[in-house]
Amino acid sequence: MIYLDNAATSFPKPERVYEEMDRCLRTYCSNPGRGSHSMSVQSAMAVTETREHIARLLNVKDFLNICFTKNATEALNLAINGCLSEGDHVITTCMEHNSVLRPLKMLQKYNGIKTTVISGDELGRIDPFQIRKSINKKTRLIACTLSSNVNGIIMPVREIGEIARDNGILFLIDASQGLGCIKVDLNEIYSSMVAFPGHKGLLGPQGTGGLYVDPDIRLKPLMSGGTGSKSGILYQPDIMPDIYESGTLNTPGIVGLRAGLDFIEHTGIEAIKAKKDMLTNRLQSGISQNRLIRLYSPEKASENSGIVAFNVKGTDSSEICESLDKAYTIECRAGLHCAPLAHNHFKTKNSGIVRLSVGYFNSINDIDRTVTAVNKIAYELNNGK
Amino acid sequence: MIYLDNAATSFPKPERVYEEMDRCLRTYCSNPGRGSHSMSVQSAMAVTETREHIARLLNVKDFLNICFTKNATEALNLAINGCLSEGDHVITTCMEHNSVLRPLKMLQKYNGIKTTVISGDELGRIDPFQIRKSINKKTRLIACTLSSNVNGIIMPVREIGEIARDNGILFLIDASQGLGCIKVDLNEIYSSMVAFPGHKGLLGPQGTGGLYVDPDIRLKPLMSGGTGSKSGILYQPDIMPDIYESGTLNTPGIVGLRAGLDFIEHTGIEAIKAKKDMLTNRLQSGISQNRLIRLYSPEKASENSGIVAFNVKGTDSSEICESLDKAYTIECRAGLHCAPLAHNHFKTKNSGIVRLSVGYFNSINDIDRTVTAVNKIAYELNNGK
Repeated sequence: MIYLDNAATSFPKPERVYEEMDRCLRTYCSNPGRGSHSMSVQSAMAVTETREHIARLLNVKDFLNICFTKNATEALNLAINGCLSEGDHVITTCMEHNSVLRPLKMLQKYNGIKTTVISGDELGRIDPFQIRKSINKKTRLIACTLSSNVNGIIMPVREIGEIARDNGILFLIDASQGLGCIKVDLNEIYSSMVAFPGHKGLLGPQGTGGLYVDPDIRLKPLMSGGTGSKSGILYQPDIMPDIYESGTLNTPGIVGLRAGLDFIEHTGIEAIKAKKDMLTNRLQSGISQNRLIRLYSPEKASENSGIVAFNVKGTDSSEICESLDKAYTIECRAGLHCAPLAHNHFKTKNSGIVRLSVGYFNSINDIDRTVTAVNKIAYELNNGK
Repeated sequence: MIYLDNAATSFPKPERVYEEMDRCLRTYCSNPGRGSHSMSVQSAMAVTETREHIARLLNVKDFLNICFTKNATEALNLAINGCLSEGDHVITTCMEHNSVLRPLKMLQKYNGIKTTVISGDELGRIDPFQIRKSINKKTRLIACTLSSNVNGIIMPVREIGEIARDNGILFLIDASQGLGCIKVDLNEIYSSMVAFPGHKGLLGPQGTGGLYVDPDIRLKPLMSGGTGSKSGILYQPDIMPDIYESGTLNTPGIVGLRAGLDFIEHTGIEAIKAKKDMLTNRLQSGISQNRLIRLYSPEKASENSGIVAFNVKGTDSSEICESLDKAYTIECRAGLHCAPLAHNHFKTKNSGIVRLSVGYFNSINDIDRTVTAVNKIAYELNNGK
């Protein structure tokens, strides 16, 4: 089996992720921050260490500015719903995922939020100047993905961050794709909030994610409840990260995420990016000569987080994926990738797009077999018609 | 080590929970419902089977009326925030957890919701007649815990359900404590929504929980985003359970929950309750004769989900817990248990309460050693003063 669906969730995880999760579950998994007994303290320490890891990854001073969520979607909903009020204006891009677009659409419908969507060039590249031009007096937030989940294009978050800072506007980075292989140093990049999943590039398990929140920002929490702190009061405590973390955290998941982050720290983000770049280039150049194939991803590795998006002329994307799965046990994704505006942009609302998303654990052999399979399927489907 | 903090999270889990989670993570953990490849289908099937399990547990016909959340707190926030509008009146009890009280308090402060809190007798027993008496024209919701997380008292949800049904009022059961050893048959008990954690009585891992929603109810979702369904539209799809499940689900967690539910189905809820009753009775009667100890839990097993709550005269609860942990490696919880009104009720806001919460995997030996330890500590603390 060849797994090329790493943009949905990375697989496999580093061995230590499995080992640490199992050890946690079997030996000390208690309720972190809820009791003072040894197991509870050990669980809370593991959670704190993971927070510290994320803070190091983003180069953030105070790890208490990181809160954990169940996935990036919760983090994005917390960020977007938490900072906007009636009348606010938001700027976003045509390459965003539904986890950004749908919360904005809901606020637009029910809470009088206005949204401007910036379009891109043929690959979805955004011109930061277009963002600057769209700012008005009511602009409260710019929301932009770190890298597109459809075609892997890396967005100019540094330049957008500068525009946001210069204009006193909040800047939310959706780091769902690319964190773990693209450096996001908040000492160099201005950002008010960074939402991330734990189970993609950070190599942790599903059920984990989080949000970095600038210490100057107080969001309206998405939910309230037991926090293990200030239990005697009926209101949500106004302390970080408790204000955004109601209910029992996913301790074994967060422990797994810590192991994934350990692996990344030890291996090095640059080394991970270099390996993924090599594999992505090899995959892309292996199919780009095929005149039956239309590519949607940027060729330059510096612009791509590890996705090769394509279609075969006159064929629905799901046909390709099915053949790859059934005949070659190559696992990838077809259809619409929860990013409707990107599909509008690429005019692929009907066909969808085949997405091959490379992971650190793919081998050259995986890539070569996939290249052969894709070219063969493209040829067969076109000759069979 | 003796673990008596099962009301916070159950420990250990059945062996199959560890095994199935590890197998999922290592062999097929993909993104469920997001792709059509074999691994994604296998992940989606595991999620569906867990949904079917929960539906069987609650005796609900259509498993699509169960949605998964990260914990019971998210489920309660979804239920409470999702069904109430300005001007609505809610009835709840003094025994509720902050995961019910804090969302209500937020709505009271910001959205013009009114709340009536029903008080109980010395053990927190609620008289359903008091609930009936508090209903007014604006009453939209009754929210009640299945069993108190402070003293284990089981609430009359059947009688309250009848009152709700007779008056056309929504009834939300917070099943955080007791589900898995108390039968909640929705064919017999009227309830509009049941919120549950996966990691307590259901013996699954942390990071799991869910909400049963009556098919006639449409809640405003707590968040929106990618659902893997209707990806081409910018609005949250209005289909169950997708409407309430945005972003990647916690597949390995849900697989672990399935294994926990398997264990419960195989063992039998009655057998689990009987064993817990025996242990709880033994623990309670072992310390109830001690005149230095004040008990807060119901003695009758039929009224108790498995908690022995107590204090030692003139002593802060945290002192007892610390001694139990340090001198006897008995893990339990002290302080306020995220249920401020219950502590007001028991007049334990300053001392807190020592909570010993029994689990299915505790042994008679665990209980006997704990009885000896508690009695000894009570004696020492009082003689040492």
